[in-house]
Amino acid sequence: MCELLGMECNVPTDITFSFAGLSARGGRRGPHAHGWGLALYDGKVAHVFREPAPACVSPLACFVREHPIKTLLAIAHVRKKTRGKVSLANTHPFVRELWGKNFVFAHNGTIKNAADLPLGGFRPMGQTDSEHAFCALLSALEHDFPAAPRSRDDLAAAVALHAGRIGERGTFNMLLGDGDQLFARCSTKLHYLIRKAPFRRATLADEDLSVDFSELTTPRDRVAVVATAPLTRDETWTQGEPDTLWVFRRGKLATTLPS
Amino acid sequence: MCELLGMECNVPTDITFSFAGLSARGGRRGPHAHGWGLALYDGKVAHVFREPAPACVSPLACFVREHPIKTLLAIAHVRKKTRGKVSLANTHPFVRELWGKNFVFAHNGTIKNAADLPLGGFRPMGQTDSEHAFCALLSALEHDFPAAPRSRDDLAAAVALHAGRIGERGTFNMLLGDGDQLFARCSTKLHYLIRKAPFRRATLADEDLSVDFSELTTPRDRVAVVATAPLTRDETWTQGEPDTLWVFRRGKLATTLPS
Repeated sequence: MCELLGMECNVPTDITFSFAGLSARGGRRGPHAHGWGLALYDGKVAHVFREPAPACVSPLACFVREHPIKTLLAIAHVRKKTRGKVSLANTHPFVRELWGKNFVFAHNGTIKNAADLPLGGFRPMGQTDSEHAFCALLSALEHDFPAAPRSRDDLAAAVALHAGRIGERGTFNMLLGDGDQLFARCSTKLHYLIRKAPFRRATLADEDLSVDFSELTTPRDRVAVVATAPLTRDETWTQGEPDTLWVFRRGKLATTLPS
Repeated sequence: MCELLGMECNVPTDITFSFAGLSARGGRRGPHAHGWGLALYDGKVAHVFREPAPACVSPLACFVREHPIKTLLAIAHVRKKTRGKVSLANTHPFVRELWGKNFVFAHNGTIKNAADLPLGGFRPMGQTDSEHAFCALLSALEHDFPAAPRSRDDLAAAVALHAGRIGERGTFNMLLGDGDQLFARCSTKLHYLIRKAPFRRATLADEDLSVDFSELTTPRDRVAVVATAPLTRDETWTQGEPDTLWVFRRGKLATTLPS
């Protein structure tokens, strides 16, 4: 199993605080020592840092924590392998281009017989059920929309439909981003919170690290954070209902769809 | 205009020395201050570091130089913009997945009316003629080979054909890799050398930095290096003929094709 982290905001925000909490679970506090990855959107393009190594001791993960890049949308992952060897090809998040923008995907859980899921123009490069499911999901979206969907809602409805079908085959907690929206599907375990005014101090659940967000924000800022398990011990996280898809836009939960 | 660097080897090799020479041209010694990128293959998957900033002052480029990752195939680029604003989306090298492996591309030159080149399943995310040409090249390859080509030679012949057609529209010095082969097309300016036994000391043309490769290598090692202009002052570089494609495999020039 793995741990997921997503962030979606209305102003460029750095993910350092949450990523520090996730990194601590990447080998030192948690069993997720087989890889870590962080995708940071810059417009339609994602900058992806990944390594098939524990995040807590990785020089690159350390560099990323020490040189924060502000972004409107980020997806991160620490991996404990269930399928597929420890390699870059099997390290989340996975990224592909569709309709002239990057889609980024990370998964927690196991999909049975994922190799049976039909593929179109997207092929796995590694051996994980996760990457196969991502390629199947994008192939289904491309089949439904040969050109980009007309609206965000049309895309969200299609993601809910196809992710739900894939989810029938096993455990499919997942994060999917396209630079514009963050989709978060709860199969068994997922939590979110919205940080907004009045901002307060927050303390990581796994590390002796706290941040007073009131010193770093303006009253209009809104930041949605999604994680497998709550990352902080002094904030209120909302637990996901199984088989639902959260859709975050501009730091708000825009809608919740059955999936 | 931009500068290209490619490396293809028969044993995992770090590109630090050559990348240091290229980085020096990325803003300090050269006018290529609008971005830098480095793609390092790990099997079929490329790890891509990119930034729309000068390589010579970039903390990330510095990190990459100080934490060398060994690879069999690398492609790097420093950018002086001619088309498209300074942004991550317009920063080379570009990467896509085709037939279950990453293709990486970098370009020097300008293609006229690149937007007229027909596209298939690959779409540009930025505004450069370069990325459009890359998407057109991959679309043509996917059209010729819906499934992966049977042989390296079949792929090389198709790359030579389609790159040549794109090259008729302007200046198309380019590097293309698929994790298995490095294709290097000379339109106006490209050089290569093969480092092999007996290894000797080499000194960068742009920096007071030299390396004695005999201390770092075994007699069987072979490393092909391709660059826009010779990167070292004390090695013999071979200049490319216009409209030809070099194909490097396992540190050797496997073939030269008209293109």
